[in-house]
Amino acid sequence: MKLVPLGDRVVLKQLEAEETTKSGIVLPGQAQEKPQQAEVIAVGPGGMVDGKEVKMEVAAGDQVIYSKYAGTEVKLDGEEYIIVKQSDILAVVK
Amino acid sequence: MKLVPLGDRVVLKQLEAEETTKSGIVLPGQAQEKPQQAEVIAVGPGGMVDGKEVKMEVAAGDQVIYSKYAGTEVKLDGEEYIIVKQSDILAVVK
Amino acid sequence: MKLVPLGDRVVLKQLEAEETTKSGIVLPGQAQEKPQQAEVIAVGPGGMVDGKEVKMEVAAGDQVIYSKYAGTEVKLDGEEYIIVKQSDILAVVK
Amino acid sequence: MKLVPLGDRVVLKQLEAEETTKSGIVLPGQAQEKPQQAEVIAVGPGGMVDGKEVKMEVAAGDQVIYSKYAGTEVKLDGEEYIIVKQSDILAVVK
Amino acid sequence: MKLVPLGDRVVLKQLEAEETTKSGIVLPGQAQEKPQQAEVIAVGPGGMVDGKEVKMEVAAGDQVIYSKYAGTEVKLDGEEYIIVKQSDILAVVK
Amino acid sequence: MKLVPLGDRVVLKQLEAEETTKSGIVLPGQAQEKPQQAEVIAVGPGGMVDGKEVKMEVAAGDQVIYSKYAGTEVKLDGEEYIIVKQSDILAVVK
Amino acid sequence: MKLVPLGDRVVLKQLEAEETTKSGIVLPGQAQEKPQQAEVIAVGPGGMVDGKEVKMEVAAGDQVIYSKYAGTEVKLDGEEYIIVKQSDILAVVK
Repeated sequence: MKLVPLGDRVVLKQLEAEETTKSGIVLPGQAQEKPQQAEVIAVGPGGMVDGKEVKMEVAAGDQVIYSKYAGTEVKLDGEEYIIVKQSDILAVVK
Repeated sequence: MKLVPLGDRVVLKQLEAEETTKSGIVLPGQAQEKPQQAEVIAVGPGGMVDGKEVKMEVAAGDQVIYSKYAGTEVKLDGEEYIIVKQSDILAVVK
Repeated sequence: MKLVPLGDRVVLKQLEAEETTKSGIVLPGQAQEKPQQAEVIAVGPGGMVDGKEVKMEVAAGDQVIYSKYAGTEVKLDGEEYIIVKQSDILAVVK
Repeated sequence: MKLVPLGDRVVLKQLEAEETTKSGIVLPGQAQEKPQQAEVIAVGPGGMVDGKEVKMEVAAGDQVIYSKYAGTEVKLDGEEYIIVKQSDILAVVK
Repeated sequence: MKLVPLGDRVVLKQLEAEETTKSGIVLPGQAQEKPQQAEVIAVGPGGMVDGKEVKMEVAAGDQVIYSKYAGTEVKLDGEEYIIVKQSDILAVVK
Repeated sequence: MKLVPLGDRVVLKQLEAEETTKSGIVLPGQAQEKPQQAEVIAVGPGGMVDGKEVKMEVAAGDQVIYSKYAGTEVKLDGEEYIIVKQSDILAVVK
Repeated sequence: MKLVPLGDRVVLKQLEAEETTKSGIVLPGQAQEKPQQAEVIAVGPGGMVDGKEVKMEVAAGDQVIYSKYAGTEVKLDGEEYIIVKQSDILAVVK
């Protein structure tokens, strides 16, 4: 099964938060700062979205920084994804 | 009786939440996480909606992921449906 | 006296909530869930509404589902009506 | 003195709330439900309002239903008026 | 010194609240209901305001009714003025 | 160092609040009403701002009245400035 | 690794808050007022953003004043950046 985003939506997979601090202490899930860096998994077709022409500028495989609190978390086949609008992606990391 | 959505509205039927956990415990209704995955039942004609041209991109039978909290729950002949705008549908599951 | 709606307004008459449960218990008014199903009584002319062209797509006599909390309740000659914008009508029941 | 409304504004005069119930009890002012029915006293010229062309569709003398909480109450020569935008008028009563 | 308003702004001078009730009681300042009637002192040039063409329809010397809570109070040479947008002026009193 | 505003931004320098009342009492800082009158220090180029053409209508040296609570206070070389959008300037004092 | 901003986004690096007051007292982190002055590190391509043409007017190396509370803080390789929209940049310091 795979997610095919609509319009200007982009499917992201969050990079794993490091579970061990530099000094070797293992952090429980909630003590880890949620990283805002993610990998692009799938990109919508763009086109007319809410009456405005949107051209997609990211591609699958890109490492991106996205806006905190943006997007919807989705679970599919036990994997977690985040679906955001392209306008919630701030920058590509190169 | 059937629901014929107007404009850019889409009628969805939520997939059943699994009522039994992997270890075999039966969960009462409110302990089940509401799945965001649904099947498209009927699709509006699109066209000019709020002054903007909308082209429908989902079709009856599609499995879709829709935005949490979006849409209106509707009961018809004892069946529950959710009516959302197409823009509340994030991705198609293929 | 009759209500002639302006612009994209639609006059609805709510269908009666069933006052008796299946097991025969008569419910007092406030215990009845307000049905969202209504009959279209009168339809405005559409046209330019808030700078946008609106074409009316419902007609008097249609059974419709409308958005919860939308509209204004109006009493005329002892009868209660709801006046909504056409965009608050989600679907026609056929 | 008279009120000449600007743009898409309409001057309304609220119909009197009935001060006596059917059983003959005289209600004090605050116990009377404010009627939403009013008579149109004066109509603005319409035209470009907030960048949108507005055509006036009500006329002085019309009985109208207007949106609860809409408009501004104005006192002139001891008379009370309500000034609303035409879009706050839901229907004409004929 | 005089105030020259920009864009669709209008400088108003509030009419004095009557400081004596009909029965002759002198009211302290805060017990007087703030009148919404004012005289137009100066009118901006109109033109493109926030991307929309605005034509000024009031003139210095007009008595107008303006929207409660609208505008900014300004003190100049000990005199108090209110600067409103023309769209906050509801009607001219003639 | 000087501030060169972007778009429709205007750099203002607030006029000093009078620190002595007419009767000669020296007021501490927080008891002084913040004056809304300011001098224009620098004016942005205008042009397309948020999709709308903006023409600058104030010039350095103008005394202006600006909207209370508008703008951002900025400190540069120990001097305090306020940067506002031109639309937050209500009137020029001449 | 470097940040390549999308659309009208701009990557900023905040200037260091002075950690020592003039009298030589070392201030702990939270007592230092966050400076609003920053250096432009990278500039997005501009173009159509949310249906509006945006032309980039700042360049890498510019010292700018940006709007308090605007932007998203991002950490990359242990360095902290702020990503803002160009419209959150108020002025260039020259």
